Amino acid sequence: MSIQKPKGTQDFLPGIVEQWQRFEQKAREICARFHYKEIRTPVFESTELFLRGVGETTDVVSKEMYTFEDKGKRSMTLRPEGTAGVVRAYVENKLYGEPDISKLFYIGPMFRYEQPQAGRYRQFHQFGIEAFGSDDPALDAEVIAMGYEIYRELGLSNVRVEINSVGNPESRAVYRDKLLGFLEPLKDQLCKDCLARMDKNPMRVLDCKVDQHLFEDAPSILDSLDEECTNHFEAVQDHLTRLDIPFILNPKLVRGLDYYTHTAFEFKSEGIGSIDTIGGGGRYNGLVSQLGGPEQPGIGFGIGIERVLLVMQNQGIVLDPPNPLDVYLISMGEQAEKEAVKLLYQLRAAGIRADKDYTSRKMKAQLKSADRFGARFAAILGEDELAKGEIVLKDLGTGDQQSVSLNDWINQLKEKCERGV
Amino acid sequence: MSIQKPKGTQDFLPGIVEQWQRFEQKAREICARFHYKEIRTPVFESTELFLRGVGETTDVVSKEMYTFEDKGKRSMTLRPEGTAGVVRAYVENKLYGEPDISKLFYIGPMFRYEQPQAGRYRQFHQFGIEAFGSDDPALDAEVIAMGYEIYRELGLSNVRVEINSVGNPESRAVYRDKLLGFLEPLKDQLCKDCLARMDKNPMRVLDCKVDQHLFEDAPSILDSLDEECTNHFEAVQDHLTRLDIPFILNPKLVRGLDYYTHTAFEFKSEGIGSIDTIGGGGRYNGLVSQLGGPEQPGIGFGIGIERVLLVMQNQGIVLDPPNPLDVYLISMGEQAEKEAVKLLYQLRAAGIRADKDYTSRKMKAQLKSADRFGARFAAILGEDELAKGEIVLKDLGTGDQQSVSLNDWINQLKEKCERGV
Repeated sequence: MSIQKPKGTQDFLPGIVEQWQRFEQKAREICARFHYKEIRTPVFESTELFLRGVGETTDVVSKEMYTFEDKGKRSMTLRPEGTAGVVRAYVENKLYGEPDISKLFYIGPMFRYEQPQAGRYRQFHQFGIEAFGSDDPALDAEVIAMGYEIYRELGLSNVRVEINSVGNPESRAVYRDKLLGFLEPLKDQLCKDCLARMDKNPMRVLDCKVDQHLFEDAPSILDSLDEECTNHFEAVQDHLTRLDIPFILNPKLVRGLDYYTHTAFEFKSEGIGSIDTIGGGGRYNGLVSQLGGPEQPGIGFGIGIERVLLVMQNQGIVLDPPNPLDVYLISMGEQAEKEAVKLLYQLRAAGIRADKDYTSRKMKAQLKSADRFGARFAAILGEDELAKGEIVLKDLGTGDQQSVSLNDWINQLKEKCERGV
Repeated sequence: MSIQKPKGTQDFLPGIVEQWQRFEQKAREICARFHYKEIRTPVFESTELFLRGVGETTDVVSKEMYTFEDKGKRSMTLRPEGTAGVVRAYVENKLYGEPDISKLFYIGPMFRYEQPQAGRYRQFHQFGIEAFGSDDPALDAEVIAMGYEIYRELGLSNVRVEINSVGNPESRAVYRDKLLGFLEPLKDQLCKDCLARMDKNPMRVLDCKVDQHLFEDAPSILDSLDEECTNHFEAVQDHLTRLDIPFILNPKLVRGLDYYTHTAFEFKSEGIGSIDTIGGGGRYNGLVSQLGGPEQPGIGFGIGIERVLLVMQNQGIVLDPPNPLDVYLISMGEQAEKEAVKLLYQLRAAGIRADKDYTSRKMKAQLKSADRFGARFAAILGEDELAKGEIVLKDLGTGDQQSVSLNDWINQLKEKCERGV
């Protein structure tokens, strides 16, 4: 009896995996241009990190974590998101002591025990960046612009940037009171989740998809911002305008975690039904100290790769498949087959992408393989060619074929397939 | 109070992570040349997969697995190795029904609860390949040659290839009896582990580091091979010789799992103390059917990335750091600073790797950052330059500097930094 993959997880096979490779390649390339360097943190962390770093009252932590006890009786959790681990590493490795600010990116698997649906998996993958050590509004603009640039260069159309300011803790306390005053008379119309949110974190009520229609006249946090917050947010908008990044103010955009401060933003894409947000982030000037580090500001975003690839699929965007084969080597006869094994290795050692048949099929079937693999050339070696020290090289694009000397054919092929290897 | 990373795990920070990136880049490039395509399987799988696919009597499964119950009461395990998941995916996705053989590679984290020591971690990382659908000895040679090629191109010296044949199940039954006959009189000299192995899987006794001195005169499995096994193994050796891959016969090299058949091999490196094996693999013609698939042969290898990087470090091999910065943009004065945010974005959108200061430091400190980042150019914008529509471009290699017009400087820089973006 065969065993299935766990519910809510996926296998990424050849034919699909190339889209992932290209997404990652693009993300890495843009990170290099924006000068963000990679950080890799463990796939699991102490459970306490997420309790403190993500927040015990969030759905993610209270309902969706993969938590287990290791053989040493420590409580561990598969990371449900990327920021907490990066902040933990920033603090533990004292990166705040370096002379420059830290601009980091990560890419990898995350885990949440949720009901699987389109674009939502129990093992999913995020690409994200985090910048520590500066509260310059120009850095907020850089982070938002970088996310936008990734979508743009991937070819996504209709990406909407929504921004808001959730202020500093003082402004937020003022707003919280105003908001509770607004919500109180609506109490018997609110859904159960919203009632619970009112107690714990009233700003998250505004996020509710069910009760959205009740909140049209809700007070805007932007009216509660103090001067520091207002100046910061205006500077961010000014930079974004100068960078030609189109954005929309959305005063209901609240990231639900207490450590968020100032700028919050989301990237949204149209036309994919219920999946709307394809990335988001914000400033979290309180988080580093909350996780035991010094007072250091931070800002970042996370992009759900499954969701972006789903949007791309729905928009008909296919990234070029990388790595087509250069040569498919076909041999006929015992001696030629033996020789082909060696020639194949020589091709590869010379930097050429090459393969051969390993199941003793007829020449016609082997030529079909060459086609399926998108090989540029078929190289055909029979006993006759071998005796003459030659091989037949067939250009599968044009159909031209010629005999070339085995003494020189690898150099000839190398020139034809040159890509600077 | 700050939170630490879990015991036996690592953070890979900028400065170290580049070695990982280069290893992966090299491995991926060689996979393209040898025509292996990537497969990605989940980080955790049903526990049953490893019980059946790795073997309940192995140390890995019986002592070292991260097993936990998910919220649906299913027993899940963080993958302790890469092959079982790939075979599961090969069967579940019916890749055996495709017209060509499947040549796959994987790269990613694995998990074993072991005592951490140099080069051994609880979260570690493997690169591996698996080829299904052919029992051609030339494919065994390809797999071994490919592993060797990776070490060679990474610059490792003194890599030793050891090979053996563990035969088919029939040959192995014959050998098992001979070996038990040899071990019986030694019983009171054997260590406790070896006595246990004698019952369960006597061939693994030969692997014992403690009792090695007792086994000099042990019978060789090569004397028990039947004709099919002998022919296969001789053909593998013949191909390796023709490919100029140096190898050593080691009849004591036994991979302990029951599904291994025919060729077994290990890559070893000298001069790193107790860490000896840096990769290994073999043929496993029984595994696909054991995991619920049809009778399909398979062969593969796995390479421990931590160990390879440790050997490289000990051999003084440093791979070039990728992605140095092209331009560090320095601005002085409020207007120039604002303008710099925009210029920076334009540089990056044009494919240039660029950064600026976000902490309002003095010019001297900013120039130091440019040096630390290995930037090729510093671009300096003051209020004077801004008024004239110019910027000062300083080549940090030669020290030359010149004023260039802001109308054209991005094109000029692009030419200087050209890398085909």
